Amino acid sequence: MSKKWIVGVDLGGTTTKLAFITNDGEIIHKWEIPTDNANEGKNITINIAKAIDEKLKELGQTKDNLIGIGMGAPGPVNYEKGIVLNVVNLGWPNNYPLKDSLETATLLPAAIENDANCAALGEMWMGAGNGAKDLVCVTLGTGVGGGVIAGGKVVQGINGAAGEIGHITAIPFGGAPCNCGKTGCLETVASATGIVRLARMELAKGSPSELTDKIAENGTFTAKDVFDAARNRDELAQTVLNEVSFHLGFVLASIANTLNPEKIVLGGGVSKAGDILLNPVKSNFEQFAFSAVRDSTKLALATLGNDAGVLGAAWLIKNQLNQ
Amino acid sequence: MSKKWIVGVDLGGTTTKLAFITNDGEIIHKWEIPTDNANEGKNITINIAKAIDEKLKELGQTKDNLIGIGMGAPGPVNYEKGIVLNVVNLGWPNNYPLKDSLETATLLPAAIENDANCAALGEMWMGAGNGAKDLVCVTLGTGVGGGVIAGGKVVQGINGAAGEIGHITAIPFGGAPCNCGKTGCLETVASATGIVRLARMELAKGSPSELTDKIAENGTFTAKDVFDAARNRDELAQTVLNEVSFHLGFVLASIANTLNPEKIVLGGGVSKAGDILLNPVKSNFEQFAFSAVRDSTKLALATLGNDAGVLGAAWLIKNQLNQ
Repeated sequence: MSKKWIVGVDLGGTTTKLAFITNDGEIIHKWEIPTDNANEGKNITINIAKAIDEKLKELGQTKDNLIGIGMGAPGPVNYEKGIVLNVVNLGWPNNYPLKDSLETATLLPAAIENDANCAALGEMWMGAGNGAKDLVCVTLGTGVGGGVIAGGKVVQGINGAAGEIGHITAIPFGGAPCNCGKTGCLETVASATGIVRLARMELAKGSPSELTDKIAENGTFTAKDVFDAARNRDELAQTVLNEVSFHLGFVLASIANTLNPEKIVLGGGVSKAGDILLNPVKSNFEQFAFSAVRDSTKLALATLGNDAGVLGAAWLIKNQLNQ
Repeated sequence: MSKKWIVGVDLGGTTTKLAFITNDGEIIHKWEIPTDNANEGKNITINIAKAIDEKLKELGQTKDNLIGIGMGAPGPVNYEKGIVLNVVNLGWPNNYPLKDSLETATLLPAAIENDANCAALGEMWMGAGNGAKDLVCVTLGTGVGGGVIAGGKVVQGINGAAGEIGHITAIPFGGAPCNCGKTGCLETVASATGIVRLARMELAKGSPSELTDKIAENGTFTAKDVFDAARNRDELAQTVLNEVSFHLGFVLASIANTLNPEKIVLGGGVSKAGDILLNPVKSNFEQFAFSAVRDSTKLALATLGNDAGVLGAAWLIKNQLNQ
């Protein structure tokens, strides 16, 4: 049994990540295939099944070696029913029975979950969560996503919308419009896009900054450039970083006062900034956390990077088969 | 079995509520005894055991009729270990083994939990939660307490501090000092004490209000007086109500964006204000909730009043014995 593999799949709008993973969380082999959204998304699970068969052949293995497949999908998922409620960019109709479709195509027992929740499970299992059963993961990428784990289980919410941490309001009045239709969401200030927007607002005030040189060179700049400038003691970049850290620390403290998780793990591209982000977020968090929470809930950077999704997906089916 | 009773106990600093409850949640008999904090709290469980024996005799029953005892205690509790971590006003030393003490005194299987969590379980079982397995309860009393239930289980937190909703920061800068040592906690604006404080601040500005008459009559006024005045279209009271509703709606939306519970139940003395509080809280909540959360998470008033605690305590041991 322990030598058998689990298939972990992390489905994205353009690329699908796959991996063969042992029961102990070791990634044996990982690879990517393009996601084919055509034909109402009907090719997606078929392509995954084909990719698995080809890779097994390439590695000189057979399907007997696989015990199950777990998959993370973007958008709200009903885990019990195995359906994806609605996804805009994959072609699937609403309430798409992804678990059934995956089982039919691969002939393997399958489990599905929202991708941000899979990342959280991955970090719980093999990453910064380090086995913690009460964990909140926040993914700071183009947007801001989240996953909440309580007692070792993903909190789904009645409508699959638990963990929508990016859409907690950070700025109640006069905040920037968010893609979700509200204004002032955490995503508008703490995502890569939000950080660049804040810096542009500061630049528009005419304040000097090395980011002006970046624009002169490349016509634009990234969130990473803002962090790099802050490291160089660029005042404008530090102002932006202070604002981002305040909002993140404040929102994470509210979450921690509600759940008192063992860890809050920050992942996604923005979190690669490392301590220059983590330290001021921590100090804001400590200011707004209830004493018993401040003393016990730890903030940490994610450690798995892009592998969190496939690992969490694999954990999902492993856990289900063990029950 | 179904005719046997469970003992539910709700321990308070001055009064202990007890009830005999059926497996179906029917309260057969309820009564109160004073809480005796003397002798390092050693009398508390002994007095409970005596009170149960006396009441059984009074009702012509024997102990064979009881299947177990559940108890809610003020302060953080480690449910697994059955210990109360620290309580200031009951005389117990830190890490007091309340479950063992209760079992020794009553010779019944016991389970203990934080009192706010018990109230949440009570509302889940027999009250406004109506069986919902994902539920957040907020108690608006002298302070603001909370209980979070996910998947039918209380979320404890790593340090027993989950559900500290009253200490989520509502006003990040310049808020009033809170008993917890922070400033601007939800409790400073949404508790009975907080509401009176806000009204006093408005009165200090010299604005006219019928609350001035209350002060002339009684030397003081209550949160209920503020709601009554708001019902009479007293402008100052309505200003206070708007502020309270904004902060409550905002914080509850943040919680709902994190957990997407089926229901958020408002209990405690302040919640008796009813729709004049619930309606503006709802409209603020809807403004700050993510669309999929707004469409699914419902706000409701608690229905069990003071019985929530004993019912939740009874559910606790019933649930444990059934497992």
